[in-house]
Amino acid sequence: MARINADRLLADLDHLRSFGACGNGVVRTSLSPVDMEARHWLATRMREAGFEATIDGVGNVIGRSPNPGPALLVGSHSDTQPQGGWLDGALGVIYGLEIARALLEDPATADLAVDPVSWIDEEGTFLGCLGSRSWCGVLDPKAEAAARNAAGTSLADALAAADLVDRPRARMEPGRYLGYLEAHIEQGPYLEEAGLEIGVVTSIVGIRGCTVRFEGEQNHAGTTPMPRRRDAGVALFDYAVRIRERFQALAGDRTVWTIGRATLDPGAPSIIPGRAEMMLQFRDADVDRLDRMEAAAEALAAEATAAGPVKVTCTRARAPVAPTIMDAGFQQHIADAAERIVPGRWMRMPSAAGHDPMVVAHHIPCAMVFIPSIDGISHDFAEDSKRDDIVTGCRVLADAAESILRAGG
Amino acid sequence: MARINADRLLADLDHLRSFGACGNGVVRTSLSPVDMEARHWLATRMREAGFEATIDGVGNVIGRSPNPGPALLVGSHSDTQPQGGWLDGALGVIYGLEIARALLEDPATADLAVDPVSWIDEEGTFLGCLGSRSWCGVLDPKAEAAARNAAGTSLADALAAADLVDRPRARMEPGRYLGYLEAHIEQGPYLEEAGLEIGVVTSIVGIRGCTVRFEGEQNHAGTTPMPRRRDAGVALFDYAVRIRERFQALAGDRTVWTIGRATLDPGAPSIIPGRAEMMLQFRDADVDRLDRMEAAAEALAAEATAAGPVKVTCTRARAPVAPTIMDAGFQQHIADAAERIVPGRWMRMPSAAGHDPMVVAHHIPCAMVFIPSIDGISHDFAEDSKRDDIVTGCRVLADAAESILRAGG
Repeated sequence: MARINADRLLADLDHLRSFGACGNGVVRTSLSPVDMEARHWLATRMREAGFEATIDGVGNVIGRSPNPGPALLVGSHSDTQPQGGWLDGALGVIYGLEIARALLEDPATADLAVDPVSWIDEEGTFLGCLGSRSWCGVLDPKAEAAARNAAGTSLADALAAADLVDRPRARMEPGRYLGYLEAHIEQGPYLEEAGLEIGVVTSIVGIRGCTVRFEGEQNHAGTTPMPRRRDAGVALFDYAVRIRERFQALAGDRTVWTIGRATLDPGAPSIIPGRAEMMLQFRDADVDRLDRMEAAAEALAAEATAAGPVKVTCTRARAPVAPTIMDAGFQQHIADAAERIVPGRWMRMPSAAGHDPMVVAHHIPCAMVFIPSIDGISHDFAEDSKRDDIVTGCRVLADAAESILRAGG
Repeated sequence: MARINADRLLADLDHLRSFGACGNGVVRTSLSPVDMEARHWLATRMREAGFEATIDGVGNVIGRSPNPGPALLVGSHSDTQPQGGWLDGALGVIYGLEIARALLEDPATADLAVDPVSWIDEEGTFLGCLGSRSWCGVLDPKAEAAARNAAGTSLADALAAADLVDRPRARMEPGRYLGYLEAHIEQGPYLEEAGLEIGVVTSIVGIRGCTVRFEGEQNHAGTTPMPRRRDAGVALFDYAVRIRERFQALAGDRTVWTIGRATLDPGAPSIIPGRAEMMLQFRDADVDRLDRMEAAAEALAAEATAAGPVKVTCTRARAPVAPTIMDAGFQQHIADAAERIVPGRWMRMPSAAGHDPMVVAHHIPCAMVFIPSIDGISHDFAEDSKRDDIVTGCRVLADAAESILRAGG
């Protein structure tokens, strides 16, 4: 069974945390100076362990085992949210580093090839999953040209500032990879609530997003009698309450939906809103359920328009993200490793958040492992996991990687 | 019966419209260069008619009849909304000018004293009812010091730019005034729908405004299961729908309420709102009903907090505006004049919008007359009234003014 060095794992995680540390959290948005410092440090750590390491033209850090393939790529992303936690992404990156070097230095596994990776901008500071898209050859040039961060800096300027423009962009080497493995904190409460230590990810949920627009008539909030009003805000509130009832009737155990933004226009206390708008997002692992939910959102808009007095339209706000199924064989290797290391204390579960395997799984087999998040918190400085759980997750993933490589996929 | 010059009335209204004309609308916000041009023109027109006219230190244009008192002050405001109609304010100002000069030039009424006035900034570009507050001696120095327009210009800078700082601020001359009369477009649909020509205003409705705040827990829109969420937006939508039911049960025929602003924080599609806020405003002529509505808004907040999972608080967002009762004797004079001129085609009605008499009525008796608004539209370039209705309104107010002055109040 593959053996990892728990102290080294935790020390490197703590060191990565120091880049952009901010209280208990981390601010290390992609391509920022501190993100690039961390990436150079990661490349150095890979080289110290005997790997060729490159930082490519978009900022991906990719290590290459001295062994020939077939290889496994193992990692995650080391960029963070604007107010990020210390483990989101970082955990999987250091797992990749530790598993690659642990297998290489142990004579029992020194023949196996694991390439560690840290993708760039999974969090979408400029363009979500920028690094894995680029590596897979599916980075849309128009999207790249349009990408800017919240401060208005273009991706091109950020790449130039990070001294990356003259570097080649790495692409997947045909035939080298059996697949890609990624570990991540769960970011939800299910493992902790069930008292389990490992989640074997079955799929990454699909996401749909709609913009619902309400067109009424702006008017004076004093002189316009209630029966004559065409208040776009009132229509929005009604829609929000009614779509909840409809979605509750369609939902499975893990279906989620969110109205994250709502605006009334012009937004003054003494003016009846003439226009209003909301963002409605919903996620599920079942594409048929997503279809039914989208149809329900559109139907409610049409019904509201027919009933009057406000016109309601529901249109897609983003390209739909299809559910991504994790490789069944890889899942079984991970499940078997979990059963060996923490017997009975693991479960299969979907991922409700998006991750780079959503991109990579269209090209090579992928699988993910989750470890528990304390209180289910993520995307927040308070994000944390128990050190024992961090070590256990790495042991399971290392064992699964060995088993996959020995089986040849 | 007092006789007005309809052609001169309409010509002066059209001329005033030319200052800041913008399509069918007018942009003549208070203390802007074009507002000051219009005020200098108004002062000139008053002087041409035999009145002393001054522009005071805040921009009020006040004419003084050569006759001794007791006098009636008649007018309105000549500043507009940022995208204003051509009659809001302007109508009452030119009525004041026309009635003052018509009575003075007719030997039958030449002994009567009418002082025409155009207040400044009723619309609150800097500070609502600035001119009438100043004239009544109730302009709060702190509010004046803090007053800025939407572009951030301070009132003090605007007064300096308008060349007003060295002018004295006019104050009500003790003993001179029987009272103040103001005409205005209705800004609502009631007169037009009833096929009537004159509204005798009984009161100006009171206004209450509350801020309702919702404190939940911000979290990831993918990984947080529905039952664990403390979504501030969901609580806001529920509150909005439920307060409507409560207010409907408390409302009279003319009660109005409006949620003009609502915000979710942080307002991102993939984040469960941790905080939310809405502005809830309600208006009625009955102060007891306003009290009951405010109590209902507070009670619903307390109930929602008790039911969980989001904390809801309701606090006053503005100083309450008490309903302002128009002088009963003045109302009767206007009603009698309307019955003489348009028998059976007038009604008594409250004003649902605020006007300078809300300030002035605390110092001298006030009354208002309304003429129909086409489609009830105001605060919009499309605001308009029929020319016949404009003339009729002026005839009624002139007749009422003569009758009040003859009766000595």
